[in-house]
Amino acid sequence: MERSRVRLDRALAFRGRAWFDGAPETTDWYAAVPDDRGPLAVLGYADPAGGEVVLRRATAADVGAIVALIADDQLGATRDDPANLAAYLPAFAAIDADPAQLLVVLDDGGTVVGTMQVSFIPGLSRGGAMRGQIEAVRVAASHRGRRLGEQMIRWAVEESGRRGCALVQLTTDKSRADAQRFYERLGFTASHEGFKMTLGTT
Amino acid sequence: MERSRVRLDRALAFRGRAWFDGAPETTDWYAAVPDDRGPLAVLGYADPAGGEVVLRRATAADVGAIVALIADDQLGATRDDPANLAAYLPAFAAIDADPAQLLVVLDDGGTVVGTMQVSFIPGLSRGGAMRGQIEAVRVAASHRGRRLGEQMIRWAVEESGRRGCALVQLTTDKSRADAQRFYERLGFTASHEGFKMTLGTT
Repeated sequence: MERSRVRLDRALAFRGRAWFDGAPETTDWYAAVPDDRGPLAVLGYADPAGGEVVLRRATAADVGAIVALIADDQLGATRDDPANLAAYLPAFAAIDADPAQLLVVLDDGGTVVGTMQVSFIPGLSRGGAMRGQIEAVRVAASHRGRRLGEQMIRWAVEESGRRGCALVQLTTDKSRADAQRFYERLGFTASHEGFKMTLGTT
Repeated sequence: MERSRVRLDRALAFRGRAWFDGAPETTDWYAAVPDDRGPLAVLGYADPAGGEVVLRRATAADVGAIVALIADDQLGATRDDPANLAAYLPAFAAIDADPAQLLVVLDDGGTVVGTMQVSFIPGLSRGGAMRGQIEAVRVAASHRGRRLGEQMIRWAVEESGRRGCALVQLTTDKSRADAQRFYERLGFTASHEGFKMTLGTT
């Protein structure tokens, strides 16, 4: 329902490079944006306990669990507070309304055990390439060691390819040595310096 | 004109954190998205020759000059081809139609002498913070040494603050030593590893 209301130009941006190659009737593009509120992927084979852990689009009901995952982290603990959900719900609404944003969760029988956000960003560089950008990746401590994170990132790369991206990118804090080895193992190259500047909260 | 047609939910996403604090009439938000096709800033004071170099939103007529700037670069030269503009115009249209994207140029008396893209990305991390992301920064060789790049980046940081971002981020190739010193001097911290993965072109 939400998806079907996206404006045409947003749908085009969302589809990215695919737009470059064909010349479909514009009305087709509305239909081409999926209303994919069901599971996006079943990662059950990654779960040695045999459970069906599914990857699905996040809903407003997941926000508390997602923020708890973000806060349950050496860096996030100082920056995020799941007890103050009111601050996060408008941010969720902004993400959810934007077809260029994809916020997903790993769902193990109704419990959120992982999360990730993927942004699809149009640009002129690299032949006018769309790029996929991965942010806010977390897997619950209870579910680590099952390669769920790996499957989730591989899915994000595949989804970026499906949407026509020429590049997938992410940054990870230099203090996260394990994360760096993880992304290198999955085929990413640490070719760039990641610069950040925190702005005063207004 | 283009701006005034953005959907309400996009306008809300575009405004980011500002949405969290007030509760304006929703119709106000359409009006709040600026139709800013005129100069965004005059950076003339950065030009010792006394000219008025202005920062303005890019138009389709600028795409050739922007791609030429992107290609006139040690890394871009192998990836971009200003002689093949057809590939870039749909990408420009996607950027231009998306209120979360801001592609700007430095204009010196009608000549494009610099460019930069800023993306505004909603997220749940850091208290549900919007972040500003800077990509594809170039200044023409003819105009380097005038601090136009510095003024342009400072403007992007200020604009991110005006839109309620809590963070500004960018990545730069590790081979660009000068760029790294430049961003550190402007107050950015190289706190992150920037990972990229190139996907096969489809």
